[in-house]
Amino acid sequence: MRILGIDPGIGTVGFAVLDADRGRQKLVGCGVITTPPRTQLSSRLDQIYRDLQELITQFCPDVMAIEELFFNTNITTGIAVAHGRGVILLAGYQAGLPIYEYTPLQVKQAVVGYGRAEKRQVMDMVKRLLHLQAAPKPDDAADAVAIALCHARSATSLIQKEMRFDPCSTT
Amino acid sequence: MRILGIDPGIGTVGFAVLDADRGRQKLVGCGVITTPPRTQLSSRLDQIYRDLQELITQFCPDVMAIEELFFNTNITTGIAVAHGRGVILLAGYQAGLPIYEYTPLQVKQAVVGYGRAEKRQVMDMVKRLLHLQAAPKPDDAADAVAIALCHARSATSLIQKEMRFDPCSTT
Repeated sequence: MRILGIDPGIGTVGFAVLDADRGRQKLVGCGVITTPPRTQLSSRLDQIYRDLQELITQFCPDVMAIEELFFNTNITTGIAVAHGRGVILLAGYQAGLPIYEYTPLQVKQAVVGYGRAEKRQVMDMVKRLLHLQAAPKPDDAADAVAIALCHARSATSLIQKEMRFDPCSTT
Repeated sequence: MRILGIDPGIGTVGFAVLDADRGRQKLVGCGVITTPPRTQLSSRLDQIYRDLQELITQFCPDVMAIEELFFNTNITTGIAVAHGRGVILLAGYQAGLPIYEYTPLQVKQAVVGYGRAEKRQVMDMVKRLLHLQAAPKPDDAADAVAIALCHARSATSLIQKEMRFDPCSTT
């Protein structure tokens, strides 16, 4: 399973491509889509949409994993990020990708083992689990790797659960 | 000038098509795009995007006028609406439409004459200015009409201002 992890944004969108197979994960690539500040919002949305379409064409992921939004801090930034997240979900849906959404708490829980982990602890685990020399850069790309990793680890446990408690099973 | 007025949303998007010429405005049509509740957000975004593309193809507007977002009430609804607004701006931009954004205060100011007008006063003025028998229905469509009307009236005064204070003029 190839996962496209997304850390949504409007100025910077983090992305990561992660292959997950039988409990093992391999980072294929990661990076950021950036849009110029002080340009029209609609133009920035179009760039994110087109760049994401290109990434999907290039890497052929099977699923998209994307962070949910929480507005504890700056509401104005939050509104802009939600606009960006809208066109990201649209591009994923149009490419036929199943889309999974995770809260920051779920990401920390899946990667580190508890939801109140510090950012540095998350990055240390990302490095360790993916056998990387250093944490991915910049931060938004690293966050996208953590989100993809969260899906890989959650999907594995979901599959295990389904195998154990298959409601469709007649046996 | 043909204006596509948009009242953004996720469950219901209001739209209005208004022709404005030399201080006169004529309502061509209005209505709503609705998406089914309890369905995946990405699927609802795709429907809004495609329906809006169809409207643009059908009515060939020259500009889009859309309401800005304010989160005084329900933040969760606000986040969903911002997602919807993202794909609306994308569809407008991709169709090559200049996009104008107005706050609710600006809409009331332009239509009624003062920014603290009640909703009913706005609707009364919409009816009067467009020589309608009744206010457009449903409410989201009526709001979109008011937004388009706001642009028609603001655009006229903008043009007048530009004619009066043309910074490029050498005379």
